[in-house]
Amino acid sequence: MKKVSLLAPGPTPVPPRTLLAMAQPLIHHRSSDFLEIFGRVREGLKKIFKTDNDVLVFCSSGTGAMESSVANLLSPGDKAIAIRGGKFGERWTEILEAYGCQAVNLDVEWGHAVKPEDVAAMLKEDPSIKAVYVQALETSTGVNHPIKELAQVTKDTGAVLVVDAVSALGVYDIPTDEWGLDVVISGSQKALMMPPGLAFASIGPKALEMMKSSKCPKFYFSWAKELKSQGINKGAFTSPVPLFLGLLDIFDLIDEMGLDNIYRETEIKSKAFKAAVAAWGLELYSKENASTGLSAVEAPAGIDAQDVVGWLKNKYAIFIAGGQAQAKGKIFRVAHMGYISEFDTLQAISAIEMALAGLGYDFEMGSGVAAAQKIFGEA
Amino acid sequence: MKKVSLLAPGPTPVPPRTLLAMAQPLIHHRSSDFLEIFGRVREGLKKIFKTDNDVLVFCSSGTGAMESSVANLLSPGDKAIAIRGGKFGERWTEILEAYGCQAVNLDVEWGHAVKPEDVAAMLKEDPSIKAVYVQALETSTGVNHPIKELAQVTKDTGAVLVVDAVSALGVYDIPTDEWGLDVVISGSQKALMMPPGLAFASIGPKALEMMKSSKCPKFYFSWAKELKSQGINKGAFTSPVPLFLGLLDIFDLIDEMGLDNIYRETEIKSKAFKAAVAAWGLELYSKENASTGLSAVEAPAGIDAQDVVGWLKNKYAIFIAGGQAQAKGKIFRVAHMGYISEFDTLQAISAIEMALAGLGYDFEMGSGVAAAQKIFGEA
Repeated sequence: MKKVSLLAPGPTPVPPRTLLAMAQPLIHHRSSDFLEIFGRVREGLKKIFKTDNDVLVFCSSGTGAMESSVANLLSPGDKAIAIRGGKFGERWTEILEAYGCQAVNLDVEWGHAVKPEDVAAMLKEDPSIKAVYVQALETSTGVNHPIKELAQVTKDTGAVLVVDAVSALGVYDIPTDEWGLDVVISGSQKALMMPPGLAFASIGPKALEMMKSSKCPKFYFSWAKELKSQGINKGAFTSPVPLFLGLLDIFDLIDEMGLDNIYRETEIKSKAFKAAVAAWGLELYSKENASTGLSAVEAPAGIDAQDVVGWLKNKYAIFIAGGQAQAKGKIFRVAHMGYISEFDTLQAISAIEMALAGLGYDFEMGSGVAAAQKIFGEA
Repeated sequence: MKKVSLLAPGPTPVPPRTLLAMAQPLIHHRSSDFLEIFGRVREGLKKIFKTDNDVLVFCSSGTGAMESSVANLLSPGDKAIAIRGGKFGERWTEILEAYGCQAVNLDVEWGHAVKPEDVAAMLKEDPSIKAVYVQALETSTGVNHPIKELAQVTKDTGAVLVVDAVSALGVYDIPTDEWGLDVVISGSQKALMMPPGLAFASIGPKALEMMKSSKCPKFYFSWAKELKSQGINKGAFTSPVPLFLGLLDIFDLIDEMGLDNIYRETEIKSKAFKAAVAAWGLELYSKENASTGLSAVEAPAGIDAQDVVGWLKNKYAIFIAGGQAQAKGKIFRVAHMGYISEFDTLQAISAIEMALAGLGYDFEMGSGVAAAQKIFGEA
C-alpha cells in the first residue's frame, strides 16, 4: 500500500500512459511497421537534440553511449581531456584508460564548473589532444558545465567536443547544431521520462571524420555499423521494441507541451525548490551554474545527509538521492526534470522539512513550503 | 484491427500478464526493493542455466553478451576457433576480428552440425588456441551444435568453450554445470518470452581464470566490474528496471509449468510442425540435429521462400522469418519456442498451406494440419 514517489535525479517517473503504450503486444523488429516506428524515433530525437546529424539509438544504459564515443573516435595512445568535476566526469577517465587512451585530467573542484579558458590553454599547449569529454549537467554535483563556450574553444582546433547530456537533454535548451556540439550523448531515463534501456548519440561531421581513423575495437557500439543500419531505420542488432513504442508516446507528450515550456516549468520547479533551501538557511552544493534539472543541497552541520535520504525512503517511500563518493553524507539531491509536478516538488519540500525537524535541525517548519508556494503562485 | 501473430524465431510473443507486470510504476534502481528483485533475478537465472556460476545480466541485445565473451577472455592476437555453420557463427569471427584476435574459422556447411572431432583435431594441432565459440542453436539454419560433446573436447585443453544459447536456453535442457560449459550466453527475447533488452552470461571457473589475463578493452561489458557489483545485487550501471519485473513474472510462469514440461511441449510443437512439412512433401533445411526451437523449411522448387513469408505477413499479419544471407529466398523459419501454443502452430501450418497453394505449389491442402493434429492428439 506504500505510495512510492520517485524524486531522485534518474530514473525519473514514467507517465502511466507511456507504461501502457509499452505494454502493447510485441511486433517483429524487422517488420515494416517497426521500421516506420524506428524512423519516427530517429526524427523525434533529432527535434529534441535540435540537430540534422544522425542520432544513433543503442540498447544500453547511458554509459554504453559514453563508451561508444571513446571506442569510435580514438585509437590506443590518443590523448583526450577528461573534465572531472564529479562522479560522471571521472567515468570519462575510466573509459579512456580502459581503451588504452591517455586521459589528460582537468580536475574541477566538485560543485564548480570548468573554466573554458583552462581547456583552451590545454589544447593550445598540446595540439595532439584529440577530444574533450565533458558533462552538460554533472548529476553528482548539480552543476552545468558551460558547453556552449567549450564548443567555441574546440571549434578551431583538431579536437572534438563530446558532451554527456544524459541528465541535461530536455532539461534546458541544448541546440546541438547551433552550438556546434560534435557529439551529444543522452539516455531515456531522465528528462525523457522513460525507463532506462535506451541511449543516444548525435554525431556531427567533425566526429564522423575522426571516426574514420579510430582504431579502438568496437562491435555492439560501432557507430559505422549503426549509421549504415539505422540509416535505413533498422538497428544493427535486435531493438528493444517496447521502449521504442514508449518513446513515441513521450514524443507526443513533448509535442503537446512544447520543449520551451518544458524547460520553463523545470526552471520554475528548480527555483521554487531552491527558494525552500534558502528559507531553511541551507546552501546548495553547486556553487556556480546550478542546474535546473536537480538541486544538490548541503545537509546542516551535524546532520548526515544520508539520514535525510533514509528518513524519506523509510518513513514516506519517497526516493531522493544522496551524495556520491566525496559528497556522500554531505548532500542530498532532488530532481526537477521529467514527469515531476510542482506538487511533487512541494511534497519533497514538506518531507525534507519533516526529516530535518526529526533529525534535530533548528529552523522554521513550513518556511520552505511557503517560499516555494510563493514562486509557484507568481509563475 | 489486424490480429498480429508473432511466430518468428525471436523476438517471440510476451505473455500479456508479463507486459502488465512491466507497466508498474518505476522504482529506483538503487533502492532496497530493487536490490531484492535483482537478487531474485540472479537466482532465477541460475535455475534456468542450471549452474552455480554467476550469471551476469547486461542491458543489451544478445550480441552485447557475445562481445563480452571475447572482450573479457582474450587479448589482441589471441587465437580462437569460430564455428561457422550459419549467420550467428559468422558473427563470432566478426567480433574476434573487431578485437584484433585471430579467428580460426571452422566452416560447417549450412544446415549441418559441427563434428566435435574436427574441433579436437584443431585444438591438438594448435594448443595456443584459447577459446572455442559456438552456437547451441544456430538460429539461421535451425541446427543444434553438439555442445555437450564439445565440452568434452575442450575440457582437458587450455581452451574455454563459449556457447551462444540466445535461442537455445529454455528450448531444451542445457545443464551448464553438469556438461561443464565454461561460458553460456543468452537473451531475454526468445524462449524466455520477454522483450529484447536483457542479455545474460554464465561464467564458469575456467573462464574466470582466463579473464584475469585478458587485455582486450572493456568497460560497459566488463565482467570484473559486473561480478563485483552484481555480487551485491546491483548493476554497475543503471538497470532497465521494468525488464527485471517482467523476468520475475516469467520465472513464476516457468516454475508453474516446470522446465521439463516446457522442453517437452516445445518438442511436441516441433514434431507436429515437422510432420506437416513432411506431409507437404517438403524438406527441412537442417539436415542433422534439427532443433525443436524452430523449423527451417526449404521452399518448393520454383517458389521463392520470401514470397511465403510475405504472403503470411501481408495477407494475414503472421510473422515468420525467411532465410538469411546464403539461405535467403530458399527457406522460411517458424518458431516453436516461448509463448507459442499448439494452436498458434496449427495457425502457422494453415497459413503456410494457404500461401503454398496461392503460390502454385501442388500438394494436398489440409494434409499438414491433419499430420500435426495427429501428433498433438497423441501427445
